[in-house]
Amino acid sequence: MQPPPTLRWDQGRLFLLDQTLLPHHVVESEQVDGEQVRASIRRLAVRGAPAIGVAAGYGMVVAVRPHEGGSVEQVLGEVERWAERLRSARPTAVNLAWAIDRVRDRARTEAPTATTGREVVDAMEAEAVAIHAEDVQSCRQIGEHGAHLVPAGGGVLTHCNAGALAATGIGTALAPLYVAHERGVRFRAYADETRPLLQGARLTAFELAAAGIDVTVLVDGAAPTLLGDGSVQVVVVGADRVAANGDVANKVGTLGVALAARHFGVPFYVACPWSTVDLATPVGAEIVVEERDPAEVTAFAEAQVAPLTVGARNPAFDVTPAELITGIITDRGLVPPGAVSSLWSGADPS
Amino acid sequence: MQPPPTLRWDQGRLFLLDQTLLPHHVVESEQVDGEQVRASIRRLAVRGAPAIGVAAGYGMVVAVRPHEGGSVEQVLGEVERWAERLRSARPTAVNLAWAIDRVRDRARTEAPTATTGREVVDAMEAEAVAIHAEDVQSCRQIGEHGAHLVPAGGGVLTHCNAGALAATGIGTALAPLYVAHERGVRFRAYADETRPLLQGARLTAFELAAAGIDVTVLVDGAAPTLLGDGSVQVVVVGADRVAANGDVANKVGTLGVALAARHFGVPFYVACPWSTVDLATPVGAEIVVEERDPAEVTAFAEAQVAPLTVGARNPAFDVTPAELITGIITDRGLVPPGAVSSLWSGADPS
Repeated sequence: MQPPPTLRWDQGRLFLLDQTLLPHHVVESEQVDGEQVRASIRRLAVRGAPAIGVAAGYGMVVAVRPHEGGSVEQVLGEVERWAERLRSARPTAVNLAWAIDRVRDRARTEAPTATTGREVVDAMEAEAVAIHAEDVQSCRQIGEHGAHLVPAGGGVLTHCNAGALAATGIGTALAPLYVAHERGVRFRAYADETRPLLQGARLTAFELAAAGIDVTVLVDGAAPTLLGDGSVQVVVVGADRVAANGDVANKVGTLGVALAARHFGVPFYVACPWSTVDLATPVGAEIVVEERDPAEVTAFAEAQVAPLTVGARNPAFDVTPAELITGIITDRGLVPPGAVSSLWSGADPS
Repeated sequence: MQPPPTLRWDQGRLFLLDQTLLPHHVVESEQVDGEQVRASIRRLAVRGAPAIGVAAGYGMVVAVRPHEGGSVEQVLGEVERWAERLRSARPTAVNLAWAIDRVRDRARTEAPTATTGREVVDAMEAEAVAIHAEDVQSCRQIGEHGAHLVPAGGGVLTHCNAGALAATGIGTALAPLYVAHERGVRFRAYADETRPLLQGARLTAFELAAAGIDVTVLVDGAAPTLLGDGSVQVVVVGADRVAANGDVANKVGTLGVALAARHFGVPFYVACPWSTVDLATPVGAEIVVEERDPAEVTAFAEAQVAPLTVGARNPAFDVTPAELITGIITDRGLVPPGAVSSLWSGADPS
């Protein structure tokens, strides 16, 4: 058994797996317009930086396609409007803006020579398909660059879900695990459950188990214990945004894992496509961290757990400083966090 | 409104508040025999080191009282049997064994001069009542010794529940908060939700809100964020066992909070009665950490969250090394962790 695909683009129609219903219900739903795509991103039906990027790329096409009968100018107007609208779905994931900009820029480039709106939208679709194909390939390359870090007979800890469900290929943080598993390396994966939305318990556990990888769930607070008792030899997590200096924004709780890994001398890796590096953000302190609905904290799996009168803080991400990161595994190679900005040069860093 | 009492001893009958049903249902249940007391401790209907101690002391009386018509020897046999039986309910909480031993020792001391089994059981009850009274007083003293640490206009972070619900007085970690609040100091309390059993979201939030203290819940993984962004000026947690060198076993997740507090330079205090210091345990590495049912992790509030086929690790506690602890607030004063063994001399450490 393999996990179901995160998304499918089928003859101009976009289907997203609703990840809020996993692991118990596998439901795919067609995204019929731009607002639905935006809502799906916002409510985390599709999540994970690479998957959000691919979905947003196709989302631009889904949103603008109904206007293809209009003039080139009219289509461009819709492109700009939807670029802003979809970009606002979630503020922290750099891939969202990156993919939207690519599809928008392709429309802008195409417009001067296009004679119909449809030509512009067709070009946008080609760009979205390219982003998708690049993501699949990028995941594979991350896996190849990181597979040697997976300790035979040992344990790998991850936080949240940066796996196949967070991307359209074999994932980012989990890609090295999949490649090592393919090569016959046997190891144990440990998945932080990752409150509040339990992506670790629901999604990472689901997809690793589906792939036949031995996986054990733990509460987030138990990670330091397992880092200290010899269960875990390496940590690999994903990233929502990497600042130019190598600071990493990722799911809330990541910083605590990094601090505990440092304390116990366990290597801590971040895996992401090079496009997650945001040169416009010099340091992590400048990353805007999304604060989500307090009800995600005060309730658990739809059960109200805190008193109804009590409020909550719910930062969705935290920022791990570069000095706590052993290395960043990208599709362009494994680099020290201080060298991530060199990835943008296109030169091979390895 | 004040939170309901953790336990009541009413004319020889023991009533426990069932904390597994909080905050939505306030249910008190009479403990009619020793097995019921043991089960209540085991399933965390009563929890928190001091409260477990008081409950176990009364539990010895509840368990042995039915045999009071027998000979002194018969009663002593029951005492030894129940001391073992109740002690096995939870392995990590030192107060459990400590309180049981006190009541058992009182029976042993009374036996040579007793003429009836009933005299022995009456003496045990007097000892259990004394333990209870001492706990109430001890909580108050912890509060007095720690109240000055609560920052006016600032934030205090705590993990799990070491409050009134974990004791029979005003709690241990929360005692300084209650005393500061009484004195008119206004501050914000932050409660880690504390997976897997959510004692922070369910119990700490409940009792602080009931007392009129401003309390905000967060997921455990967000604690480093709040320690780093200036929300929190001091951390206070409880303890299940303190080793002679000052290492502290407390609810799983405590170590991660301590590491993050150290990283961001926030003082980290442990509050507990001096009786929580276990001289028989020289260092934290020797503390046996209870592993509880994996289902506490893979499900919550009757909702299955992880795939049914996936296992979990569920250590109930972790051990925070003394070097990460700023001070230990006890009923005998505020001491550096390295000085806890001096508390046993009875000399005033302050």
